[in-house]
Amino acid sequence: MTETELADAAAVLNEHRDGWCSAIGLTFVRANGAEVIAEWTIGPQHLQSYGIVHGGVHCGVVETLASVGAALHGLERGQSVVGLENHTSFIRAVREGERLRARATPLTRGRSTQVWEASITAADGKLVAKGSVRLLCLEQGREIAGGPARTTLK
Amino acid sequence: MTETELADAAAVLNEHRDGWCSAIGLTFVRANGAEVIAEWTIGPQHLQSYGIVHGGVHCGVVETLASVGAALHGLERGQSVVGLENHTSFIRAVREGERLRARATPLTRGRSTQVWEASITAADGKLVAKGSVRLLCLEQGREIAGGPARTTLK
Amino acid sequence: MTETELADAAAVLNEHRDGWCSAIGLTFVRANGAEVIAEWTIGPQHLQSYGIVHGGVHCGVVETLASVGAALHGLERGQSVVGLENHTSFIRAVREGERLRARATPLTRGRSTQVWEASITAADGKLVAKGSVRLLCLEQGREIAGGPARTTLK
Amino acid sequence: MTETELADAAAVLNEHRDGWCSAIGLTFVRANGAEVIAEWTIGPQHLQSYGIVHGGVHCGVVETLASVGAALHGLERGQSVVGLENHTSFIRAVREGERLRARATPLTRGRSTQVWEASITAADGKLVAKGSVRLLCLEQGREIAGGPARTTLK
Repeated sequence: MTETELADAAAVLNEHRDGWCSAIGLTFVRANGAEVIAEWTIGPQHLQSYGIVHGGVHCGVVETLASVGAALHGLERGQSVVGLENHTSFIRAVREGERLRARATPLTRGRSTQVWEASITAADGKLVAKGSVRLLCLEQGREIAGGPARTTLK
Repeated sequence: MTETELADAAAVLNEHRDGWCSAIGLTFVRANGAEVIAEWTIGPQHLQSYGIVHGGVHCGVVETLASVGAALHGLERGQSVVGLENHTSFIRAVREGERLRARATPLTRGRSTQVWEASITAADGKLVAKGSVRLLCLEQGREIAGGPARTTLK
Repeated sequence: MTETELADAAAVLNEHRDGWCSAIGLTFVRANGAEVIAEWTIGPQHLQSYGIVHGGVHCGVVETLASVGAALHGLERGQSVVGLENHTSFIRAVREGERLRARATPLTRGRSTQVWEASITAADGKLVAKGSVRLLCLEQGREIAGGPARTTLK
Repeated sequence: MTETELADAAAVLNEHRDGWCSAIGLTFVRANGAEVIAEWTIGPQHLQSYGIVHGGVHCGVVETLASVGAALHGLERGQSVVGLENHTSFIRAVREGERLRARATPLTRGRSTQVWEASITAADGKLVAKGSVRLLCLEQGREIAGGPARTTLK
C-alpha cells in the first residue's frame, strides 16, 4: 500500500467492497484513521414495507463507517477490530431516490477499545440518523470465529 | 385479511417481502403481535471484510423482527409504528454458510411506544447477537416523511 | 416565572433541586431549551468499589441534562417529557476530587419525541463519558404513573 | 474469603457497600458470577422533579448489578472488569414508597468482554426498566485511571 493510500483508503475500499457494502451500494469519499465519509442513494433494497428507509440500513452504515475508521487506525498499530455494541437513533424518515451522506469520527481510540460515532444527513443537511459503535481491538494473530482476522487493506 | 393470516402473518410477509428483507434473504417462520421468528443463511452479501457477518446485518434483523411484531400488534388498534432507537450487542462472530434464527418478543406494548427485543442464535443454539428496538406508535392517517404510513399487511 | 428565568432556568433549578440532583450535588450553569450545562465535584457518593466514578453517575447526569433541556423546550409548547431510552458510553475513568462538566444539546426536538446528547468532560477538557436520551413528549394533562406530570418550573 | 462467601457475596457486599450503593440504599439478595439480585425502596433521593423515579437510578442499578456479577465471575480468573457501555430502556414510571427488585444475568462471559443484562420489576412483578452493560475484562495488575484496580471482595 502506498503512502497516499494509507493516508486515505477510500479508493481501495471502493475497489474491494465487501459483500455488505456492495449490497447497500455505499461509496467511500474519505477513509482514514481519523475520519470516514461515505455516500449512497436510496434504492428499493433499502426500504421497509412503509416505503421508507429500513432502520437496519442506518445501523449498518453506522457500523461500516465506525469499523472502517477503527480498522484503519488499528492497522497502524498492528491491531484488527471487531464491533461490540451498536446504538443508533433514527431522527428523520427518508424515501427512495434521496442521496445520503454519513460521516464518522472517533470519540476514543484506546489500546483496548475504540468508540466511533457517525451521523447520517440528507442532501439538505438535515440529520437523518446518528449512532455510535464500541469496538474491541485485537492484537495481530488473534482469531475471530475460528479463522484469522484479515482486512482487505493488508 | 383472514383470521388465519391475522393469527400468523409469516406466509403473507414471505410473499410480500420488502426490499431490505429480500436483500438479506430473511424467511419468516412465525409473525404475530406477540412473537416473531425468522431464519436466514449467511451468504456473501452479509459479510464484512474480515469474512464474518457484518454487525449491521444483526442490527437490521433485530430492527425487522421488532418492527414486524410491533406493526402486527398495532394493526389490531389501527396504529402503525416507526422505529426510534436500535441497540444491538454482538456476542459471537459467525461465518458464511451458517443458518441463523432470530426471535423477537415484546417488553412493552403501550399506546404511545413499544419495546421489542430480539435474540439471534446459531444452529447449535449459541447466542450470536441480541438487541432491542423502541418504536413510536402512530394513529391512523399520520404521515411519515411526506407520505402515508402503509403496511404490506393492509 | 420572569422572562430572564425562562431564558435560562439554571438559577431556578439550583434553588429547587430534585432528590436525585441533590444526592449527586449537581450545579446547573446554564439551562434552556437549546443547551444545558452543569458541573459537579466527585465525592465518595459517586464511587464504585474500585475507587473510580460509578458508571451509573454518568448515565444519571446524561439523563438529567437531557430531561431538563427537553422539559424546558416542551414547556414552551405546553408539553412535559419522559425518558424512554438512555445509552451512555464510558470513555475515561475518573477519581475523587475531580471537577466534571456536562453539556447537553438536542439532536431533534419533534412534537412526538426529542433526542438529546450529553458529553461529560474533565477539567483538562478530556472526554469522560458521552450519552444520548430519547424522550417522549406528553400533551398537558397526561398522567404519569397514576399522578399528574408536573415540573418544578411551573 | 470463605467458600460460602465465594458462592454468594451478597452479605459481603451489603457490609462493604461502596459510595454509590449506600447513596441509593441498595441491598443485595444474591450475588455470584452467574446471577445478581438486589432490592431497594424508592425514597426522595431517587426522584426527579415530576415525582417519579429518575431514569439515572435505573441505569445505575443496572450498571451496579452487571458490574458486580461480572467482577465476581472475573475474580475466579484473576480479572477485574470495567464498564464500557450502558443501555437502559424505561418501561414503567414508579413513585416513592415502592419496593423494587433488580436481577442481572450474563449474556456472555468471554475472556475479553462480558455482557450482562438486568431487569427491574415492581412488587406486582411488572417490568419497570431493563438494560444491558458491556464490560471490559482486565488482567491482574492493570491500572485504571492512574491507580490499581481493586475490589472490596479481595
